[in-house]
Amino acid sequence: MSGVLTSRAADFPRWYQEVMAKAELADSGPVRGTMVIRPYAYAAWELMQADMDRRIKAAGAENAYFPLLIPESYLAREAEHVDGFSPELAVVTHAGGKQLEEPLVVRPTSETVIGEYMAKWVQSYRDLPLLLNQWANVVRWELRPRMFLRTTEFLWQEGHTAHATEAEARGYAQRIHGGVYAPHLTDLLAIPAVLGRKTERERFAGATNTMTLEAMMGDGKALQMATSHELGQNFAKAFGITFVSSTGREELAWTTSWGTTTRMLGGVFMVHGDDNGLRLPPAVAPVQVLVTVVRPSPEVDHAAEMLVEQLTERGVRVRLDAAVDTPFGRRAVDAELKGIPVRVELGPRDLAEGNVVVARRLDLTKVTVPLMGAVDLAEKALAETQQGLFELAAAHAADHTVEVASPDEAVEACRTGWARIAWSRLGPAGETRLAEQGVSVRCLQTPDGALPESEDEPGVVAVLARAY
Amino acid sequence: MSGVLTSRAADFPRWYQEVMAKAELADSGPVRGTMVIRPYAYAAWELMQADMDRRIKAAGAENAYFPLLIPESYLAREAEHVDGFSPELAVVTHAGGKQLEEPLVVRPTSETVIGEYMAKWVQSYRDLPLLLNQWANVVRWELRPRMFLRTTEFLWQEGHTAHATEAEARGYAQRIHGGVYAPHLTDLLAIPAVLGRKTERERFAGATNTMTLEAMMGDGKALQMATSHELGQNFAKAFGITFVSSTGREELAWTTSWGTTTRMLGGVFMVHGDDNGLRLPPAVAPVQVLVTVVRPSPEVDHAAEMLVEQLTERGVRVRLDAAVDTPFGRRAVDAELKGIPVRVELGPRDLAEGNVVVARRLDLTKVTVPLMGAVDLAEKALAETQQGLFELAAAHAADHTVEVASPDEAVEACRTGWARIAWSRLGPAGETRLAEQGVSVRCLQTPDGALPESEDEPGVVAVLARAY
Repeated sequence: MSGVLTSRAADFPRWYQEVMAKAELADSGPVRGTMVIRPYAYAAWELMQADMDRRIKAAGAENAYFPLLIPESYLAREAEHVDGFSPELAVVTHAGGKQLEEPLVVRPTSETVIGEYMAKWVQSYRDLPLLLNQWANVVRWELRPRMFLRTTEFLWQEGHTAHATEAEARGYAQRIHGGVYAPHLTDLLAIPAVLGRKTERERFAGATNTMTLEAMMGDGKALQMATSHELGQNFAKAFGITFVSSTGREELAWTTSWGTTTRMLGGVFMVHGDDNGLRLPPAVAPVQVLVTVVRPSPEVDHAAEMLVEQLTERGVRVRLDAAVDTPFGRRAVDAELKGIPVRVELGPRDLAEGNVVVARRLDLTKVTVPLMGAVDLAEKALAETQQGLFELAAAHAADHTVEVASPDEAVEACRTGWARIAWSRLGPAGETRLAEQGVSVRCLQTPDGALPESEDEPGVVAVLARAY
Repeated sequence: MSGVLTSRAADFPRWYQEVMAKAELADSGPVRGTMVIRPYAYAAWELMQADMDRRIKAAGAENAYFPLLIPESYLAREAEHVDGFSPELAVVTHAGGKQLEEPLVVRPTSETVIGEYMAKWVQSYRDLPLLLNQWANVVRWELRPRMFLRTTEFLWQEGHTAHATEAEARGYAQRIHGGVYAPHLTDLLAIPAVLGRKTERERFAGATNTMTLEAMMGDGKALQMATSHELGQNFAKAFGITFVSSTGREELAWTTSWGTTTRMLGGVFMVHGDDNGLRLPPAVAPVQVLVTVVRPSPEVDHAAEMLVEQLTERGVRVRLDAAVDTPFGRRAVDAELKGIPVRVELGPRDLAEGNVVVARRLDLTKVTVPLMGAVDLAEKALAETQQGLFELAAAHAADHTVEVASPDEAVEACRTGWARIAWSRLGPAGETRLAEQGVSVRCLQTPDGALPESEDEPGVVAVLARAY
């Protein structure tokens, strides 16, 4: 199989670029930094969307849709927010054949426009909490674009909520972060992630607190998979989101926002991929089982159709590969590139003995089994793959994370993985110096891996890495 | 119930505006012509999307995602296309803090950018047909915006396909139009629609043929609900979509495109609504049955919860209304405004006799039934409502469509409904004169209501109306 892709050890970025093209995941768009998401990758995104949408609705939020184009003046109302996003904005200055009186920004995120409508819709404490989510595209001009990970336009969900008290806002943001995002990553994407608090330097522009889930990629770098923000009363002040409390006082609301993007798909590719291509967790694999006709015969064709039918009945996403004009070896390589978790291969010789081959992408093992046992074994292989990919990723992360005592040690450790250091040994000054060497504080945790209430909590540990 | 809304007969546009606000469907956006889709309307859109997406996938198309921002030069490659869309474009001239070398248009539709990638992906006849669909937002600057019907930004699906022959392209466009869009309208939205061919004047910019589905609104005007275009080889020429045929010759592909938008939701509101508000077809109603506690008691609360549970088990979208602090009458008015198809009302007095009330939004009838029969009756009422709304709309359309013999008669008839006239009596010149009086040819049909192969086919009938 060697030679299909550059090996990950030799050149990880190149491996990633090659797999984008060869597995037909994405193409560069016509405008620098944009991308075309091809059907195979988009189908995985749809599976992720469906799971995430279900979890978000179960947490009580409702979907809505707000406009793409935002008056430039809206962003300026929250000082940190506009400072954070100004360098990345795409601006519409002309429309309908005329110059606009006020330029419009293509939304980089929707706190401002949603804040405007929250102010309109929230009157009384009875209107709270207001729990909204939106699936949308956003645009942030990227200087160093990379497909899925950092693109000028990306797809995401952005949740926006308003609450009567700080404690309720905090509680809801934590519920989304720990109760929606974290299990989506582990259960669906088979990705172990570290949950922590961002430093002030790394916080979202306009937030009082940002929580993150960080995952280790195959090359030891970190990818921020999901963030959830407490926005305090910053946007409530800027947009006048006030309500009359149960005691009749006018008060400012407390808001949150939280998002996950198509970047997560890049994470799935980079966490689980190997030198033969992708390895998709079955839960997000558009094709879970490929039933492959090695060489056709009436018996083979019949058995293949029967397997497709039986697997479909069990709710497995199955596809028939009967493209026998293409050499079998090339089809197998393609299925491996695309990370299809399980293949069932049928050829006349095996079948004459009543057998088929079940191949697992997880570990490239193949077993010959009686035809009648193939469906059960394929289902078992799917479950084992979902679990096995998680375990491999967790072991990789554990093997590549070290405790260090100094920033110098951290830089060294971050050449191949992550470092953990007492935040008291680093602090904002040390963080700035590390940043100059390309290492960032991915998050802060308590010594036992929980969410600290502040940076100053005793014993807080900083997780350090180079990041995408 | 009178007084909640302006009556439709008195002022249909005002009724529409009021129902937008009072049923919490949409708000005007901050930029002229844009809108905010509120959760209740968005939930209906999600149900429509799910049905449409399923039908499109069953027709073999795969979803993908193409960039929002398109180089201005792309549009210019197809002469009619750029002429058609130029006046409506929103243009990004600055991004990342700099003026761009080439302005970017916010996609008004994606034929051009998708054409560019089709050219890249299609090499051989084996790559055809290429069947793509995209769910996305598009922007067209509107001078006379109206919520859902005509907004500067709207949500839609746009299908784009490439085929080896004209016959295959035509066949696929017809399959989508008649086999996906038409049953979606009738079966899901309960909207009877007229399927026909657009005149050259009304054709999509760059198409060789446009098919449409036109529906009559409650005020007798027409709304274009779905269009499907044969693009001939126009975009294949402009973008170089060529393939090597099975005989080894390089040939130009034949492409199609087809779309439906959030405008359809406006159609649902305008076709089925009455003077008390919306009447949502159960298939797209976010809440199908509202279980209303008229006045609470332990028995009422218990029975209400039981009904919610039983209806949920049957797959009904049910919501409990136990907001007894709000007067019952106000809650009933609100449920009628929102068009919830069925309400089950529970009060202590009725329940003491073992009864509840089942109210149908369709005809505002209420029947008292034993508690144990309520679930069955509610389900029956849902089925009857889905069917009943279709029949009412079909009867309304039939009652307001007249055969006419002259353009003058047509203008008169189109004050309250639609007119049908022999196309040979009108022709492009008559069409232009009618347009000056606000009447347009919605579509051309054969005498028996089928799709004509050309405008010149003998006996072709023009369907005329004022349109949104």
